[in-house]
Amino acid sequence: MKVTLLSIVVLFWSFAECSNPHPLDPLTPSEINLVQTIVQKAYPTSHNLTFNYVGLDEPDKLKVLSWDSSNPKPEPKPKPKPPPPPPRRAFVMVRSQKQSHEITVDLSKRSIVSTKVYQGNGYPPLTAGEIEEATQLPLNHEPFKESLRKRGLNDVSQVQCVAFTLGWYGEAKTRRIVKIKCHYRNGTVNFYARPVEGVEMVVDIDDMKIVGYNDRYVVALPKAEGTEYRASKLKPPSAPKPKQDHGPGFTIDGHSVSWDSWDFHVGYDSRAGPIISLASYYDVQRKKHRTVLYKGFISELFVPYQDPTEEWYYKTFFDGGEYGLGRFMSPLKASTDCPSDASFINAYYASSDGTPVEIPNAFCIFEKYAGGIMWRHTEAAIPNELITETRSEKTLVVRTVSTVANYDYITDWEFTPSGSIKSVVGLTGILALKATNYTNTEEIKKDIYGTLVADNTIGVNHDHFFTYSLDFDVDGVANSFVKYNFETVRVKDRSIPRKSYWTVVSETAKTEADARINLGSKPTELLVVNPNKKTKQGNKIGYRLIPGPMAHPLLVGDDFPQIRGAFTDYDVWVTPYNKSEKWVAGLYVDRSRGDDTLAVWSRRNRRIENRDIVMWYTMGFRHVPCQEEFPIMPTLSGGFELRPTNFFERNPILETK
Amino acid sequence: MKVTLLSIVVLFWSFAECSNPHPLDPLTPSEINLVQTIVQKAYPTSHNLTFNYVGLDEPDKLKVLSWDSSNPKPEPKPKPKPPPPPPRRAFVMVRSQKQSHEITVDLSKRSIVSTKVYQGNGYPPLTAGEIEEATQLPLNHEPFKESLRKRGLNDVSQVQCVAFTLGWYGEAKTRRIVKIKCHYRNGTVNFYARPVEGVEMVVDIDDMKIVGYNDRYVVALPKAEGTEYRASKLKPPSAPKPKQDHGPGFTIDGHSVSWDSWDFHVGYDSRAGPIISLASYYDVQRKKHRTVLYKGFISELFVPYQDPTEEWYYKTFFDGGEYGLGRFMSPLKASTDCPSDASFINAYYASSDGTPVEIPNAFCIFEKYAGGIMWRHTEAAIPNELITETRSEKTLVVRTVSTVANYDYITDWEFTPSGSIKSVVGLTGILALKATNYTNTEEIKKDIYGTLVADNTIGVNHDHFFTYSLDFDVDGVANSFVKYNFETVRVKDRSIPRKSYWTVVSETAKTEADARINLGSKPTELLVVNPNKKTKQGNKIGYRLIPGPMAHPLLVGDDFPQIRGAFTDYDVWVTPYNKSEKWVAGLYVDRSRGDDTLAVWSRRNRRIENRDIVMWYTMGFRHVPCQEEFPIMPTLSGGFELRPTNFFERNPILETK
Repeated sequence: MKVTLLSIVVLFWSFAECSNPHPLDPLTPSEINLVQTIVQKAYPTSHNLTFNYVGLDEPDKLKVLSWDSSNPKPEPKPKPKPPPPPPRRAFVMVRSQKQSHEITVDLSKRSIVSTKVYQGNGYPPLTAGEIEEATQLPLNHEPFKESLRKRGLNDVSQVQCVAFTLGWYGEAKTRRIVKIKCHYRNGTVNFYARPVEGVEMVVDIDDMKIVGYNDRYVVALPKAEGTEYRASKLKPPSAPKPKQDHGPGFTIDGHSVSWDSWDFHVGYDSRAGPIISLASYYDVQRKKHRTVLYKGFISELFVPYQDPTEEWYYKTFFDGGEYGLGRFMSPLKASTDCPSDASFINAYYASSDGTPVEIPNAFCIFEKYAGGIMWRHTEAAIPNELITETRSEKTLVVRTVSTVANYDYITDWEFTPSGSIKSVVGLTGILALKATNYTNTEEIKKDIYGTLVADNTIGVNHDHFFTYSLDFDVDGVANSFVKYNFETVRVKDRSIPRKSYWTVVSETAKTEADARINLGSKPTELLVVNPNKKTKQGNKIGYRLIPGPMAHPLLVGDDFPQIRGAFTDYDVWVTPYNKSEKWVAGLYVDRSRGDDTLAVWSRRNRRIENRDIVMWYTMGFRHVPCQEEFPIMPTLSGGFELRPTNFFERNPILETK
Repeated sequence: MKVTLLSIVVLFWSFAECSNPHPLDPLTPSEINLVQTIVQKAYPTSHNLTFNYVGLDEPDKLKVLSWDSSNPKPEPKPKPKPPPPPPRRAFVMVRSQKQSHEITVDLSKRSIVSTKVYQGNGYPPLTAGEIEEATQLPLNHEPFKESLRKRGLNDVSQVQCVAFTLGWYGEAKTRRIVKIKCHYRNGTVNFYARPVEGVEMVVDIDDMKIVGYNDRYVVALPKAEGTEYRASKLKPPSAPKPKQDHGPGFTIDGHSVSWDSWDFHVGYDSRAGPIISLASYYDVQRKKHRTVLYKGFISELFVPYQDPTEEWYYKTFFDGGEYGLGRFMSPLKASTDCPSDASFINAYYASSDGTPVEIPNAFCIFEKYAGGIMWRHTEAAIPNELITETRSEKTLVVRTVSTVANYDYITDWEFTPSGSIKSVVGLTGILALKATNYTNTEEIKKDIYGTLVADNTIGVNHDHFFTYSLDFDVDGVANSFVKYNFETVRVKDRSIPRKSYWTVVSETAKTEADARINLGSKPTELLVVNPNKKTKQGNKIGYRLIPGPMAHPLLVGDDFPQIRGAFTDYDVWVTPYNKSEKWVAGLYVDRSRGDDTLAVWSRRNRRIENRDIVMWYTMGFRHVPCQEEFPIMPTLSGGFELRPTNFFERNPILETK
């Protein structure tokens, strides 16, 4: 009877399936059924088989490649019939009689090709069925019921247990056991938030019974309130501002922009280009606008080329201070440079004789929906409920493009509903090219300081260092710069078989010298906090920097371009706010001697703790050109994120629908 | 007469402008006009003034903050009248009589507040007008005309010159000079591609005349063919496959996907989740499908928690090998998990008893248009032409979400028309939470191994190491792994005042030991090349890895979890292809002892040069939880890019409209 039923299922599925299988197609339902039938037949019915893994046993790569090369790609249509794929095989791992079996099944021949009993260490993956069974065991386990009663948790139907693999900690002999920890759901579906801490059980998966029990200590059960995430159960607090029914979700009043919870000002300067100021986030819980960033802009863009010959050695440009990232902003076009529904703002600079010059559509502002997910969770473990809550992401982008001669620099400032500010730069346009007699690399006997990208054409090696000025005002003006140093700690407790873990050693920078950072040199997280304010939980209110691409300068420190570009000596610097310290390469950059750079200002080693502070962050791209970048370069992007870190009491977009 | 005209302009603009200026608004056209008038009046008419910089002289930060705090944000409407902003001032840098002047203008009082003649080093930014004038000078300069004739370039109207700042190389005294280099446009608007190499001029900007001339050598002028980028002038080669007029731009045949120039297979495995195979790109120029990636998938996801206490120390999960990233894939929903026009594919795995289980809509596939720019250039320097060519970007995304208990891992494989493959992971879902009696950090006297994220709730510190298996087949099966080591070189030529530059020292890994990389430890670019094929220019055909977030393991090497997770000891490893080496943590991971990891396989130190090779790349997130992540975590994303690098002869999306 059972076999007949199975056969029907197989027949049904065979009918529904693709008639031209690809050799790498995953196993179909009918193939899985077939595996089940074949394997079950091969073992005595008294043996309980658990199918821990059933997957495609891939054909040899060479067979796949040979099949693929003779399988015409979908052009032209109609597609000719492809050659037959290599034989379909399944690789199966079953657990039976406390042993792990590896079985290879030939699906075409409906037979077992090979079997092996695995004698080594370790076990196959847990199955969903095993996990489900194991996590039900505590519900009828008397000691556990007693532990619940001890904690005043009287409704066993509200208990939700989770099975955890427990790894290996040097035991000479292992069993196939897992640890079980339980949660008390009562009042929430977010049971992970309500762990019954201090109690753990050990389950032998092969025997499917509890073989260890430990109720070591009692602590508070976290409350259910505030843990809900289903839209249907949440009463959203009143939105910060009325949403528009039609048109863009943002308003532009002059240069002030309001969108979602964000308010900020989009400034313009002929040298810096776009300037984001007074960015604040309306906190629904606190019912107020909270400041984040007083100002953010690219203070300098240093582009040293790496060809030391007579006609090229001097090319070490400071595109901000020598030319002007704002002056050379390009008019943007809807539908290509920006989405068709973008809004635009013009910019004006003074020409040589002082007359205003308009850059029409110099800024575009648009809501970006890129198919991203703002947050999500699927909860399949709760009996008789399948929860899927997903919030799709929309962000707001302020875009400009600075075309400094050949290069086009796309600068996006992006604001997210969750409180992040991102800045993404895109490099496109045309490479700086050098003519040569070479047409093939074989002719080249010495360094050409770049790549032969076309006949007679070298794309010369260079760097792009974008140095941002980030004047944080995290929930107020007085801020501190904090390094979370990650340090390995040796476990001293002899009862614990684990030897090490990492912890956070928080270090607040007292002076500028404490805040000079080369990213990547040691494991660190960098934050700007408001030391005068704390969350309800007592955490420091902060934002952290999630850095973008890095490229430390490789010129020697006493080389002239590096003296002038000494602000790239570190990736991050922090200085006290000083109105006159705006341009990291100095106010007068053309032919400068490096006597007015950030590196010079910072020598004073001023106090920066609990002050109005400015972070200077350099994002670097090391650029060895390639042929793809000729005659025009596909955009290469990189960006950083300023992300709220204990700035909010809780997820600020929980109530968003 | 002149003054009258100006006044009219000012009046006109005043009328058109925002009536509620923000103190950080950039200078308006009328304000720039006013600056011009006021400054010109203050200087004798015989002085030629060049306005090198005119920008807002920002009010003091405290004044801005005070104004801002009393300026109600746009809620509720109608907006009340804001308080008057601080006085508007402009900061002006003019060049006159070979001196740099700094002038502060009060725009409200229409008067000059202060002036200063700058005596220090350096000069203000070049103006667009100065650059234009300087770049015209060569056209009437006899020695340059002679240089052109010598090179057979007879049409001076086709000459396009560019002014370059020349920095400072230790000269005791500097002048305000720039270098001029010219290009011969004839036949292209992409004049940067046609440099008249070997010739340079020096222009004194203050005197606006050529003060230096050097024709040092003659090399070939690169040809104009192949340099065009305007759609109107390009004849696109026939597209690789017919585009659909309606519906999505991709086709799905079973598990095979075709889109734009890409063909690939989307596989599924209960352990790995999504598997991208046989990714190839149709090269229009070579008229063939060229292989890139034989296979890419997440081989393991190692998540060690960092709490060494009895109930938590063992939590060092291997989500792939212990649970299954595929088995725990979640059904995706259109309009939230994926865009509304996404296509879906189901997945099937075997349950404990071998019966197939369906995950409906386990994959979604969609075209992503995020408002990005594929490439662009604005060319404003050519007389009587303003060129703006921009190609907006559309990519193809294959998305899955693996929900391993509390965590939701979003995995996007993204294909770009320019030949890149990106993989972006997003972390969301619910933190692993530990109950505690603490409700405020002030009560805490010892390490809690995490962050107090809510009352009685600790979010425990942990890492996420995504280890990818990337079986490259770059234009064929036999590949090599190449490191571009960036090295600083001292300039030896005494005639060159620059002291250093960096160069690329290419190193091909011979054996596995040569290919173990800790990213960030030294400046490197990592490539996989086909050593048997070269571009027309002779460059090795390759792809490079642009890495994503890094987090090196911090457990001690002899700690049990790190022995089992030893594949994270390096960020990048390369091994010869071996069908049995698929799972970096071993085939049997639950309770494994680390005797079947990548680190063990790789001890053999096999040859990997010009072989079928596999790269193992780990993307790491170090995760100190924060309150924002409770009760559910806003997505934290990171991704890497595999980018063609001399794989194509030239920009492969040049002809795209």
